[in-house]
Amino acid sequence: MNSTVLRCYVVLDLAVVGPRCPVELTQAVLRGGASAIQLRGKDRPLRELAHLATALLPLVRAHNVPLIINDYVDLARAIDADGVHLGAHDLPPALARRCLPQGIIGYSPADCADLLSSLGADYLGVGPIYATSTKADAGQPIGTQGLQTLRAATELPVVAIGGITPTNIAEVLRSGVDGLAICSSVLCAADPHTAMCSIVSTVNTYFD
Amino acid sequence: MNSTVLRCYVVLDLAVVGPRCPVELTQAVLRGGASAIQLRGKDRPLRELAHLATALLPLVRAHNVPLIINDYVDLARAIDADGVHLGAHDLPPALARRCLPQGIIGYSPADCADLLSSLGADYLGVGPIYATSTKADAGQPIGTQGLQTLRAATELPVVAIGGITPTNIAEVLRSGVDGLAICSSVLCAADPHTAMCSIVSTVNTYFD
Repeated sequence: MNSTVLRCYVVLDLAVVGPRCPVELTQAVLRGGASAIQLRGKDRPLRELAHLATALLPLVRAHNVPLIINDYVDLARAIDADGVHLGAHDLPPALARRCLPQGIIGYSPADCADLLSSLGADYLGVGPIYATSTKADAGQPIGTQGLQTLRAATELPVVAIGGITPTNIAEVLRSGVDGLAICSSVLCAADPHTAMCSIVSTVNTYFD
Repeated sequence: MNSTVLRCYVVLDLAVVGPRCPVELTQAVLRGGASAIQLRGKDRPLRELAHLATALLPLVRAHNVPLIINDYVDLARAIDADGVHLGAHDLPPALARRCLPQGIIGYSPADCADLLSSLGADYLGVGPIYATSTKADAGQPIGTQGLQTLRAATELPVVAIGGITPTNIAEVLRSGVDGLAICSSVLCAADPHTAMCSIVSTVNTYFD
């Protein structure tokens, strides 16, 4: 996996999307420069997620951006998505690898000790950096201090997640991460496309 | 799939197992003649289910009985289980087939209209036949009348499920099913092995 796909990684959380159209939002953030799209629908039937993911595939492919499925390795394989993102309650990355030999596998470790479970993963999602209302079970914020601790404990690429907004992007990037996972900051923006463009510009300036 | 695996199909529901040891229970019902074991752990982390399923595999293999995983196609593939059982909220059988080209795929249709979704399945789970406390979202009992309606509407092998006990086995078998899914009747029995032997004897007498 090329770690540049983590730079401006959009988590399309259907609970955050609310009544907006997830397909239109995806188009807007892709045009704005999103480097990856993660489809997250914690409480949705897999049948519904399968339909949506299938609709998103041609969009992401047109932008040469990976589609990552949250939690469901079987769904990712069935629709030929590019990867999965897993947490401590999901299939461990080493087992997921048997289903997705070529896919991108992301893992959110519960803490430093849980890094052992990341065996088989291609990248780590680390957070929540700041308080977030996006994910009910996200846990206590770890701050950039906690982020730096995890960053130092692994050689895997790291994407920071949780409460990331235009005002704290610079601070997070200074922690040595490979990218930022963005959710509400673009999905709930008055103009998601413009919000995405702005974040992408800030992030690229830092890396380039 | 040989439909005889459906004859005395034990649903190892971890909520029903309670404090008993699921491995010992599985050994007891296998020795008693169970024709298939379905591992169901609706609220359990996949990591825990993966450990348990891996422990069950050598037991079922020693009895030449399939291990079917409830809901999680990825887990089934990752641990090389024999199949999955899916419901209306899970990955549709036709998509699951892409993950498990050789596996047994069971499907519980919500009703006759939902039989269309069974495309790709090897067998159907139909029920609940009677009232059951095993599965909170099982829905209203369909009775043997509803069972016969579904039985007539499909050519797939059918296993009846829900509230099946020694006292109603004969009535269910007369509906033309290929087998019975048993849960509390054996898992909660004072002596699960003897309870299983008794049910297997009754069922085999009917078929032989």
